[in-house]
Amino acid sequence: MQKPIRLGMVGGGNDAFIGRVHRIAARIDGEFELISGALSSTIEKSIASGKALGLSKDRNYGTFQDMAKCEARLAEGIEAVVIVTPNHMHYPVAREFLKRGIHVICDKPLTATLSEAKKMVAAVNKSDSLFILTHNYTGYPMVRQARELVESGALGKLRLVQVEYVQEWLTEQVNNKQANWRTDPMRSGVGGSIGDIGTHAYNLSKFVTGLSLSHLSADLDAFVPGRRVDDNANVMMRFEGGAKGMLWCSQVAPGNENGLRLRVYGERGGIEWQQENPNHLWYTSFGEPKRLLTRGGAGTSLTANALNRIPAGHPEGYLEGFANIYSEAARSIRAAQACQPVPKDVYCQDVMDGMEGIRFINACVNSSSRNSAWVSL
Amino acid sequence: MQKPIRLGMVGGGNDAFIGRVHRIAARIDGEFELISGALSSTIEKSIASGKALGLSKDRNYGTFQDMAKCEARLAEGIEAVVIVTPNHMHYPVAREFLKRGIHVICDKPLTATLSEAKKMVAAVNKSDSLFILTHNYTGYPMVRQARELVESGALGKLRLVQVEYVQEWLTEQVNNKQANWRTDPMRSGVGGSIGDIGTHAYNLSKFVTGLSLSHLSADLDAFVPGRRVDDNANVMMRFEGGAKGMLWCSQVAPGNENGLRLRVYGERGGIEWQQENPNHLWYTSFGEPKRLLTRGGAGTSLTANALNRIPAGHPEGYLEGFANIYSEAARSIRAAQACQPVPKDVYCQDVMDGMEGIRFINACVNSSSRNSAWVSL
Amino acid sequence: MQKPIRLGMVGGGNDAFIGRVHRIAARIDGEFELISGALSSTIEKSIASGKALGLSKDRNYGTFQDMAKCEARLAEGIEAVVIVTPNHMHYPVAREFLKRGIHVICDKPLTATLSEAKKMVAAVNKSDSLFILTHNYTGYPMVRQARELVESGALGKLRLVQVEYVQEWLTEQVNNKQANWRTDPMRSGVGGSIGDIGTHAYNLSKFVTGLSLSHLSADLDAFVPGRRVDDNANVMMRFEGGAKGMLWCSQVAPGNENGLRLRVYGERGGIEWQQENPNHLWYTSFGEPKRLLTRGGAGTSLTANALNRIPAGHPEGYLEGFANIYSEAARSIRAAQACQPVPKDVYCQDVMDGMEGIRFINACVNSSSRNSAWVSL
Amino acid sequence: MQKPIRLGMVGGGNDAFIGRVHRIAARIDGEFELISGALSSTIEKSIASGKALGLSKDRNYGTFQDMAKCEARLAEGIEAVVIVTPNHMHYPVAREFLKRGIHVICDKPLTATLSEAKKMVAAVNKSDSLFILTHNYTGYPMVRQARELVESGALGKLRLVQVEYVQEWLTEQVNNKQANWRTDPMRSGVGGSIGDIGTHAYNLSKFVTGLSLSHLSADLDAFVPGRRVDDNANVMMRFEGGAKGMLWCSQVAPGNENGLRLRVYGERGGIEWQQENPNHLWYTSFGEPKRLLTRGGAGTSLTANALNRIPAGHPEGYLEGFANIYSEAARSIRAAQACQPVPKDVYCQDVMDGMEGIRFINACVNSSSRNSAWVSL
Repeated sequence: MQKPIRLGMVGGGNDAFIGRVHRIAARIDGEFELISGALSSTIEKSIASGKALGLSKDRNYGTFQDMAKCEARLAEGIEAVVIVTPNHMHYPVAREFLKRGIHVICDKPLTATLSEAKKMVAAVNKSDSLFILTHNYTGYPMVRQARELVESGALGKLRLVQVEYVQEWLTEQVNNKQANWRTDPMRSGVGGSIGDIGTHAYNLSKFVTGLSLSHLSADLDAFVPGRRVDDNANVMMRFEGGAKGMLWCSQVAPGNENGLRLRVYGERGGIEWQQENPNHLWYTSFGEPKRLLTRGGAGTSLTANALNRIPAGHPEGYLEGFANIYSEAARSIRAAQACQPVPKDVYCQDVMDGMEGIRFINACVNSSSRNSAWVSL
Repeated sequence: MQKPIRLGMVGGGNDAFIGRVHRIAARIDGEFELISGALSSTIEKSIASGKALGLSKDRNYGTFQDMAKCEARLAEGIEAVVIVTPNHMHYPVAREFLKRGIHVICDKPLTATLSEAKKMVAAVNKSDSLFILTHNYTGYPMVRQARELVESGALGKLRLVQVEYVQEWLTEQVNNKQANWRTDPMRSGVGGSIGDIGTHAYNLSKFVTGLSLSHLSADLDAFVPGRRVDDNANVMMRFEGGAKGMLWCSQVAPGNENGLRLRVYGERGGIEWQQENPNHLWYTSFGEPKRLLTRGGAGTSLTANALNRIPAGHPEGYLEGFANIYSEAARSIRAAQACQPVPKDVYCQDVMDGMEGIRFINACVNSSSRNSAWVSL
Repeated sequence: MQKPIRLGMVGGGNDAFIGRVHRIAARIDGEFELISGALSSTIEKSIASGKALGLSKDRNYGTFQDMAKCEARLAEGIEAVVIVTPNHMHYPVAREFLKRGIHVICDKPLTATLSEAKKMVAAVNKSDSLFILTHNYTGYPMVRQARELVESGALGKLRLVQVEYVQEWLTEQVNNKQANWRTDPMRSGVGGSIGDIGTHAYNLSKFVTGLSLSHLSADLDAFVPGRRVDDNANVMMRFEGGAKGMLWCSQVAPGNENGLRLRVYGERGGIEWQQENPNHLWYTSFGEPKRLLTRGGAGTSLTANALNRIPAGHPEGYLEGFANIYSEAARSIRAAQACQPVPKDVYCQDVMDGMEGIRFINACVNSSSRNSAWVSL
Repeated sequence: MQKPIRLGMVGGGNDAFIGRVHRIAARIDGEFELISGALSSTIEKSIASGKALGLSKDRNYGTFQDMAKCEARLAEGIEAVVIVTPNHMHYPVAREFLKRGIHVICDKPLTATLSEAKKMVAAVNKSDSLFILTHNYTGYPMVRQARELVESGALGKLRLVQVEYVQEWLTEQVNNKQANWRTDPMRSGVGGSIGDIGTHAYNLSKFVTGLSLSHLSADLDAFVPGRRVDDNANVMMRFEGGAKGMLWCSQVAPGNENGLRLRVYGERGGIEWQQENPNHLWYTSFGEPKRLLTRGGAGTSLTANALNRIPAGHPEGYLEGFANIYSEAARSIRAAQACQPVPKDVYCQDVMDGMEGIRFINACVNSSSRNSAWVSL
């Protein structure tokens, strides 16, 4: 076991949901040590948050700019930074670290706007540092198993993709830190639900199927009065090669907590996976009984099981799936530090995947504003 | 208990799936007695099928025309006829019986074409007889419970409708009686899956929500080479009043046997029902735990439970749901015979519901052929 | 299709749950026609009930004795009688019909007492008529599938049987027709829950596994104050050949409607079936993924599917399972009338199965009264 | 956030399942730092395992005796040790640390024998150090919720407990590190499945219900030829106050991975929880619809939710449940270090709970050897 990678965090201060998730995920496999941060949007809140987390005083920064500058100069400065700010800050923050040779781990979506996304791509291309986008749902072992089933041809040529990501938490007007920035287009970007969770759904379907989206037709709504971004999106999809699909995301569907669900069908079989019970994957070879594949159980693959920590029947959850991204990030970073290519069995999403997510959000908004016209990414 | 209603059948000969279903459904509550038939498309097959079913020789007809004429003249002739032919024969058959004052029970969809549908409406309007369309899924007690929850306002103003009807049986080229006429546009009409099962899905969502469809955008495919009608349909829906929805039907999704599933969400709550486990209905009042309502169980309504034959936990199935339509048909027919209006608690679908189904099919085909343009019914 | 068998009914008058079930089950496949009855315990109620059911006046009897005598003399008298009285009347009623050559279909358990059970066996042995005990859960196609998997050796030598039948309806003191006789030892016999539902559970496990029970140890309780028979039974079982098992039945377990569930494990595999979702059967071959077998679906057998009326995904329920017993009864009766043996693929439970059920009840009560000593049947 | 507690580990070397689990669980919330170990049964393997884990050379011991002695002398020696050896080593190891004032966190069961258990109790009583037994399943938030529902009286006076813990992994002869010591009575103690998983089931039922076991009757088997300890146990239970129960544990039930399941019923309601889907808890108040309580969801309590890291719908799993025990251990240790009592809302199982587990195992083995006689703990 090597020494943990020295990690810093930007954003993720008090009460932030996703910051805490990243910290735990980074810790689970012991591959990272959080030693530095600029955790909030004001100097005072940043310092207070860092103190609460136990950051040492000299590594607890008031601004990300200070943090980037100082850390880059330290002999034992951070090797990587994780960005868990609202979306509009992803690019400004990443830029500062990328240009100083610090690897970036960034929450999705890539940015708030397409123009920022383009700048992000440029900044990454110019840098020697890695850029890793935490589409955490790709870290579930049974999602890897699903991808492998598709790749192996077990489903035959793909015909249908049905993906949905359904929540209830914005059914009514909500006024808290989580909700406020996610429903503010200045901070979240043009997409509401489509940006926050629709991108996850799209990314997941792409990750598993490998299909290229040709065109989409979207119908977006903001059902809650006064809401300035969509809280529900209905999308039809056409893929290159002829497959078709639908994507539904919603944050106003009572009875659904975090219902990400993917179904894929081909000429020879079908699969179904649901995030709320992530250790299970249904697989049907047409003409045979349905099989329930379980994480680590009979019939699962080496690739999928490489991500397991514990045996079948001992449920791993959201945090372990997220931690798998961090473990792969660690392996990538160590490879980069050794001037090696990213290992072949690492599936981290990168800046181009992030760019595709932004194009997807924009295409949905664009299509919806044009009465659901078919648009390409 | 009154004497059973004298029933005839057109179509439904040897090997027909739906004919047998209707015969059992008509028998379960003892309200009908099948005494006459013209069961197939040729005289020889008709006679053979009627013989196999035990029809007496003089009531076993070679053609529906003969049957209509003869039965109408008999003192104890049939009081009602059930039509279970391929779709293109629904109108020609119904006409013969309607004009002779015999009540008609007809399988869905109403007809194969819109022009036939219009003629059917005219024929029904001209006749004193009842016309009952067997959208059997509306007969499940928990579907009635769902409808009642919506009507009661328990969900608040509706926002979202998600309905799907997914099968696998046409994943490959199939060559049997069931498949052949359903994939022949001359007999089934312009819709394949959208006509066979999409109409069920649409009808169910309408039945439960009461929402009026304003516009739809559809993307239809025939995935199996050589298939002349759609085997998959993706549809986006806009309802009057602002609710939105999606409808997916497919016959090429391996792992799905008869997956009709409806989800409805409003400002205050949500419900979910699945045909393959029809005795259960999930209901969530926003901010409260999910409740599992069970047929006949705690928290269910008098209206829903009026359809029960057996207590909670003793599963009723597809045939009982279908039989509920027949029981309501019987009550309607007896009311008509007594010159009474249809009882208030009878929810049989009628010719106008059938017309709406045909408009729905046509709108889907039309929209799809126009690159998924929004069209109205 | 042959003429329906002429059927009479004893018991099952107004408000009786199981009488109605039998009538529907007998009707579903059109093999029986109910034409005669003595439906209640008093002459007045019998006549009123028969009238309500539409029995013709001359076949609607005040007492079963009159009914047996008269029907036996009629040229077109009943060919079979179904007995749906409280348990203590099974034998007195059956005797009258058996001795007159009328076939008997009888609800379970066989009798209220062991001495009656012995007399029943004697009466059946002396008669040329058939005696069929309606252990209806053996009629589910997936129960047949389970039996066949065991017989085929797919599970290897059996080791474990876990069976439970759990309800909630007697959680509190209940005062209605259903509850009253079932909790009155004079009418139900010494067993409460163990007689009413425990026998079903035991019969089901025997039907599927074929194992012979060697000894049992039981702990019975009457939790509701004043209840005179058990409402919960915990039982451990030892089978010949070394397999072990547990049986739990309860009528005081809130949240359980009619939870009959069987799990069987052998050296090579396991199965699981639940009555509330009877179209599904889980099957695991050790070392392979779990398979979900569905009624009529891929991987099911001809024997199981011979009982199907409708395709996979169209749920059949409790009444269809019950109707399968009636269809097999009809085939047995027709065979007997033709002086043929009972067809090989008929699995109706007979008087000896019923005797075993009574021995099981008595053994449980006996063991419980002796501080759960191991006793044999 | 305080400095992590300095932790050592005894046992848990290469390939050990449970050692890795403890390391991750200790790490998730950042409350512990593993800095010392004696990880295996030989000096060479210990050193190699510690090296692989990145322990510094001077804190990586060949024997637990050396470790205890050295660490106790260090200014920055470990504050707590976790024991994850085979059962027969729990006491000898614990003794060495307890007597030196180092807190002990120990895997279950307490010891291999009752005499060791008694010595363990004495050693704990003599020591000022804490002794925490990791019955990890008590750490799931929904198990806490279940306990609280019982305590609140929501179920009324309890009547029934049904608990089972079912696995398949020992269906055949297995030869690996995990299996070998667990099936060796010298290392595991007299109980096989009853010791390894039956104690978990018993502890869980006790934790949730608070019921005191009065007597039990057990029937244990070793189905796999040559196995020297039980691989299946059927147990009936009688509790003080009149409640009854059954416990089934098995390691030879194909199709079951880690099926721990608890059902509890009282005069007014019932609950059901399953480890493989630990974020869900079914709760029924008699006469009302079943409610599905979800971790962090509507209707859950502050006590349960205090253990959450992430919102409802984001599944937490086995490791998080285990980590909750570690977090409570950390709070207890910090309280002890501050000469405070254990916080009121800490529910860690202690040496007396462990003693009860050993008595339970012994009682089961004893009862089984006496033909399932009722025995008390």
